[in-house]
Parts: sequence; structure tokens; C-alpha cells
Amino acid sequence: MATIPTIWTYDWVPEGPRGFVRDLRLRWAAEEAGLPYQVRTVPFRGRETNHLDAQPFGQVPFLEDGDVRLFESGACLLHLAGKDERLMPRDPVAAADTLQWVMAALNSIEMASVPWWFLTVSGQPENPLGAWLDKRLGQLEAVLADRAWLAAGRFTVADLVMADVLRVRKVRERGDRPATEAYVARITDRPAFRKAHADQLAHFRAADAPA
Amino acid sequence: MATIPTIWTYDWVPEGPRGFVRDLRLRWAAEEAGLPYQVRTVPFRGRETNHLDAQPFGQVPFLEDGDVRLFESGACLLHLAGKDERLMPRDPVAAADTLQWVMAALNSIEMASVPWWFLTVSGQPENPLGAWLDKRLGQLEAVLADRAWLAAGRFTVADLVMADVLRVRKVRERGDRPATEAYVARITDRPAFRKAHADQLAHFRAADAPA
Repeated sequence: MATIPTIWTYDWVPEGPRGFVRDLRLRWAAEEAGLPYQVRTVPFRGRETNHLDAQPFGQVPFLEDGDVRLFESGACLLHLAGKDERLMPRDPVAAADTLQWVMAALNSIEMASVPWWFLTVSGQPENPLGAWLDKRLGQLEAVLADRAWLAAGRFTVADLVMADVLRVRKVRERGDRPATEAYVARITDRPAFRKAHADQLAHFRAADAPA
Repeated sequence: MATIPTIWTYDWVPEGPRGFVRDLRLRWAAEEAGLPYQVRTVPFRGRETNHLDAQPFGQVPFLEDGDVRLFESGACLLHLAGKDERLMPRDPVAAADTLQWVMAALNSIEMASVPWWFLTVSGQPENPLGAWLDKRLGQLEAVLADRAWLAAGRFTVADLVMADVLRVRKVRERGDRPATEAYVARITDRPAFRKAHADQLAHFRAADAPA
């Protein structure tokens, strides 16, 4: 009997990150692909040290799928994408196109947006990473002005991760980028995103409830 | 007849980035796997706009392999890794282990080190990303103190990309991390790295020569 993949996340997080904890990417991917999954938790308190054998940076998510164990949301997404062509086409040219855009979301956009966000919420008055982020967002806007999907002419896991990177409000408020706005609105209106998002909010809200 | 993969890089770069332009990762991977390849160039001057159809952020490297075209060094490395098990084992558990550490190098370490480096060379006196970078490097040091290779009990493409991220001198000077130092020294002493590094230096040096 095949085991059901397990997405690991925290048992609880403060209000701020709710709706943005990275297990959402995995829930969303599983929902898009119609893959069954279960969610299990590690304690948020003590996360810096208590699950380093599963995630050496003390973070979530991580994924268990039979004997396969994976951390890094990008790695988990590529693993899930290997299980269902709705996430990544099987044709080698289209698969490579999808792969390059997954990596671009993580390594060209998120690599600029996360440190920028980090400086911004730390109260850095003139954020020295703003120009870098704006340049990348501008280059991406030019791409999105030309097409509906990043790769392979249809929805793929590349759109999932790019939209997840871009939906951070502060990042989107950096400038007027209509194609990017329309793209994020369209991708995050997918039923699979809405379910994954609602499920994550419900998961953390349940942890607030008195016993 | 199979086509020979083409690694695209710049025709020239200033002295500073020589030895660190990301085509080195692809050369290195091809050398490790014994894959034939050729190197072709796009002009460094005008890079912001002149090859956006191949790389929408105006960067290098990108890779052509038959009909497959890829940008993002991480995507190119995973593509090359799919061609030869010396870069990534075929066993699913070991492959997932390799994949997660490739992503960790790019998304947990490089995501901190590149913006930190960018602020540092911009003359930011108290770099606000230093604590984040140090935390990640410390967590990685604990991993490397325990084992010789990141994944699968042997050299993989995960070591290639992690060592490439870590060999930046300013990053390594952040603190005393003996396991990381020994790891980087050992991985970059591999003949495939030394050849790729020498070849990149020679490539850019040749562009300096008077016609």
C-alpha cells in the first residue's frame, strides 16, 4: 500500500506569518495535482534546535513520501512535480522550461525579495536592496506582459512558486506593475491555492483555541 | 548525431568577477561528469537588454542541449545532473537528498550570502544581514562537522554548488568555521573544479589580448 505523503509544518505560528508559512506551497501543489497528503507538526517553540535532523536550518516545511525525505520548499515542489504532470509537463523541453522558472522564482526573485523584506520590516529607512528588487521585478513584468503563464504555455509549478513569492503585499506595493498584479490575482484565485490558504489559516487558528 | 551542450557566458567581464561567473558551475559539472561541451558567448556590454530572449534577467549562464534551453545555474545543474549519475545518484532516496541540498545551497545559503555580499561591497558600514548569514553558516558548519559530503554519502552536484557559494572569500572570513573551511578546500581541490576555474580565467584573459 502506498503511503500518503506527509507535509510537516509548525504546530503554531504568530499572526504575522499565517497564510505565508511555506508548507502552503506544498499543500497547494498537492491540491493542484489531486495528490492525497496529511499534515503533521513540529513545535514552533524550540524550532531552532528541535528538528535539525529533519531540517538543518530549523525551518519548515519538510516532506515525507515513503522512504523519501526532503526539506527546502523548492526541492519538495520539484519532488511533487515529478509525481504529476499537472505540475510539470513530461516533455523534456517543457519540463526544462518549467524547471528554469521554478529556479528563477526562488533564486532571481525571492533572493532579492526576502532580504529586502527582511530589511524593510527591520525598519531600515532607506532599503539598500530596493533598486535590485525593482530591477528584477521590472524584468519579470516585461515577461508577464507577454504571456499568461511562465512556462510551457500553461499552469505549472513555476507559476505556483512565482505567485507565492510575489503575493507578499509589501513586495507588490513597490511599484505599478499591472501585468504582475493581474498574474498574481489570477494564479492565487485558483481553487487549489484558496483551499491550501484556508487550510493553513484554519490549522494555525485551531492551535489558538482553548483546550 | 547528438549535439554537444553549449554553455553560454559573457565574452568579457572586469577583473573582479573573474573566477566567479556562474558559467563556472556548468563547466565544473560537465567536467565532473565527463560530458563534452562547448562554450559560446554573448556580449557583456549591453547585457541588460541584448539576450533577454535567452535570459530574461540579462544574466549568464544559459545552456543549450539539443532542443532544451535553460537559464538559472541551478536549473542548468539539475539538467546536467539528470544526464550522469556521478552528479546525482539514481536511487530515489539519494536523489532527493541531493536535490534538497542543491536547493539549500541556493535558497538557504546563497539567498543570505549574495545580498549580504552586495551590501558589503556597497560600503554598508554595519551590514544588517550579517546576523542572518552567520546563523545560516553556523547551522551549516554543524552539518559539515559531521560528514564529508552533503548528500548520499559521496560527492554530488549538491557539494559542487554549496562549495561554489561558500568559496567567496568575504563570506568565509565571517567567522572561524573549520569544518566549512576544510570542506571548501577539499571540494575545490577536485581536478574538475581546477580545470573549470582555469578555463574561465583563460577565457576572459583571452578577451583582454590585443587583436
